[in-house]
Amino acid sequence: MADPSKSPPLIRSSVIAARALIKEHIHYTPVLTNTTLNDLASKPQLASSLADTPWAGQEPSNPKIRFFFKCENLQRIGAFKIRGAFHALKRLMAEEGWQEGGGREKGVVTHSSGNHAQALALAARTMGIPAHIVMPTISTPNKIAGTKGYGANVIFSGSTSTEREAVVEDVIKETGARLVPPYDHPDIILGQGTLGIELQEQAAALIATRGDKVSNGLDAIIAPCGGGGMLSGTAISCEGTGIFVFGAEPEFEGGDDCKRGLEQGRRIETVKTLTIADGLRTPVGAYPWTVIHDRKLVRQVFSVTEEQILKAMRLVLERMKIVVEPSAVVGLATALYNEDFRRIVEKEGGAEGWDVGIVISGGNTSVEALGKMFAAGEVKAERQEGVVGLTGTRHIENVAG
Amino acid sequence: MADPSKSPPLIRSSVIAARALIKEHIHYTPVLTNTTLNDLASKPQLASSLADTPWAGQEPSNPKIRFFFKCENLQRIGAFKIRGAFHALKRLMAEEGWQEGGGREKGVVTHSSGNHAQALALAARTMGIPAHIVMPTISTPNKIAGTKGYGANVIFSGSTSTEREAVVEDVIKETGARLVPPYDHPDIILGQGTLGIELQEQAAALIATRGDKVSNGLDAIIAPCGGGGMLSGTAISCEGTGIFVFGAEPEFEGGDDCKRGLEQGRRIETVKTLTIADGLRTPVGAYPWTVIHDRKLVRQVFSVTEEQILKAMRLVLERMKIVVEPSAVVGLATALYNEDFRRIVEKEGGAEGWDVGIVISGGNTSVEALGKMFAAGEVKAERQEGVVGLTGTRHIENVAG
Repeated sequence: MADPSKSPPLIRSSVIAARALIKEHIHYTPVLTNTTLNDLASKPQLASSLADTPWAGQEPSNPKIRFFFKCENLQRIGAFKIRGAFHALKRLMAEEGWQEGGGREKGVVTHSSGNHAQALALAARTMGIPAHIVMPTISTPNKIAGTKGYGANVIFSGSTSTEREAVVEDVIKETGARLVPPYDHPDIILGQGTLGIELQEQAAALIATRGDKVSNGLDAIIAPCGGGGMLSGTAISCEGTGIFVFGAEPEFEGGDDCKRGLEQGRRIETVKTLTIADGLRTPVGAYPWTVIHDRKLVRQVFSVTEEQILKAMRLVLERMKIVVEPSAVVGLATALYNEDFRRIVEKEGGAEGWDVGIVISGGNTSVEALGKMFAAGEVKAERQEGVVGLTGTRHIENVAG
Repeated sequence: MADPSKSPPLIRSSVIAARALIKEHIHYTPVLTNTTLNDLASKPQLASSLADTPWAGQEPSNPKIRFFFKCENLQRIGAFKIRGAFHALKRLMAEEGWQEGGGREKGVVTHSSGNHAQALALAARTMGIPAHIVMPTISTPNKIAGTKGYGANVIFSGSTSTEREAVVEDVIKETGARLVPPYDHPDIILGQGTLGIELQEQAAALIATRGDKVSNGLDAIIAPCGGGGMLSGTAISCEGTGIFVFGAEPEFEGGDDCKRGLEQGRRIETVKTLTIADGLRTPVGAYPWTVIHDRKLVRQVFSVTEEQILKAMRLVLERMKIVVEPSAVVGLATALYNEDFRRIVEKEGGAEGWDVGIVISGGNTSVEALGKMFAAGEVKAERQEGVVGLTGTRHIENVAG
């Protein structure tokens, strides 16, 4: 990876420059709207839905929300990660001396069992750079085949981060390959932020055709937060626009590390959760934290439950008819079910309401995984009905693993 | 329904006129392309995949195919049926005397447990016309709630067509409502055909940007065939354009009635199949037959197996990331797996290949149904491996019911 100290500053114009660098390699993914989901978000939750939540017994809020879904599940490799990967490689190729026998032939390396693996593999193949991807031996055959299919050299490791990083070190020593981390680097952050620029312009165009609002576009964007690369990039892309940026996390087993970190005023560095939102199991990285916390470019981070994630997934699959992975819907789940967020919209949006951009981050799942998730969901539903039984957690672990 | 003898003639200009009538009420659904599926279609099937097929032991063909998917799963109510419903009502409203105390207040009636029910309910509500929908008592609660949700008066009946039609007769006698059948009427055919006009113009625009072909657009369109309203409408929309129109059907338990009818030179009037493609369980209607058979506007009809439907569904869900119902993918399954079709493309398309429009007819399914379908698929896969066991049929019946 290029030396972070030589990366462009983390400001909006750098995101616009990043977009120009990667534009030819990525899809300009559509922004979808959906009347059914707008209607659902724009009526109060049932009082019974608030039982067992922090808002139990309180009056449900009544915000007015119109959604603009940025569909990165329709992006190349099925997730936004391709943006950061291409930007990182473009920046590396611009590094003096690297191209001419200084490293390009030695390639790049990363460890990932998820979307970043395929993203880096595809971007490297496109650029003619060798890619070494360290994957845990327990990765699904699908993901291994997908990564190999993009021409990457797949190297296996144990599943703990210590084991994985040790193998990466070996690869670097052996080959001289440069590390391209999944989120904790300015070049990655700026690359992911390009989706924010696109969403702003696409939503503004749609809002303009409506003709009922004097506005320059969106009021807010909610983005999922795992390592925080995409959330912080999106926040940078909105700086100075007046658009509020919010983060969304799974609360399961402490997956809401960014939210808790903001409450405590310090970054939480380790997280161990098996949330169904498997793309969001990582703690926020140091560079993203400077944007989210130190510079306060993210207004607030909310968390949602596993049940709320499944409910939002069902709505997207059955009503919007697009395939999403669990991590992709935490923003929608926040807007539908989190009363802290909904009260902000009710109060600040008033009768006119808010136009809210939702980042649908990816769609990499399988029909079998979907089947298991909703079988697990049924177990949970039974439990809620008072039947003593499984918590559903075991099922969810199996699905997301 | 308007008197069929007063319907516009079944010619391309009538479809264009129908489009103008319904345009404001329907979505201009996107046409998607997908490199992965193009690549998959453009290499020969494995010889082993042809075992147990009519082409066993023969050389697999090697066509070149580029797909243009018309996504009617993203249409209002989740299926193309809304087109015919709006057109039928627009035509009815243009009937002399009907508006002014001659019938409008008496409403419309149909029987359907599927997409036509919700389509007519929504179109009627939009037009301010009462709608009576006869549904079998065994319909899923989801579908009943959906139809009621559009403000229709739902009346229950037994599940056989005799029982359903008897209830419709009662409703007509009691209320004076006019029947709007799901497919066997010229106004419905012309309404469904509007998707063909859109697909032609959208694909032509995409092909023009490619710049590597001197062409006026698509070479062919494959559309699913159940009652034949949409297939015949699509065929009419292509008359005189040089675009070949093909039909696709499930072969399970004789679901390929149109194909068999064309072979025998006479329409097959009853079909009893529990194919997973539940939208295609009906025999071709008399009006569609005149277009498909008598006027030869459909070049050929192909059939696909239940396994091929599931394989195509998996590809669309996992690769294209859109949600489809089984009936929606018989066209894609034909292009991927039917050697009769593929040989035509290889022979006539040659090295340049064909640009093939695929009608994705609808996306109305549930996460539970998807889970069950692919659980059933696993049973079938085991059977193919030589394990003696279930045929999978029972599971598939349950899913599609």
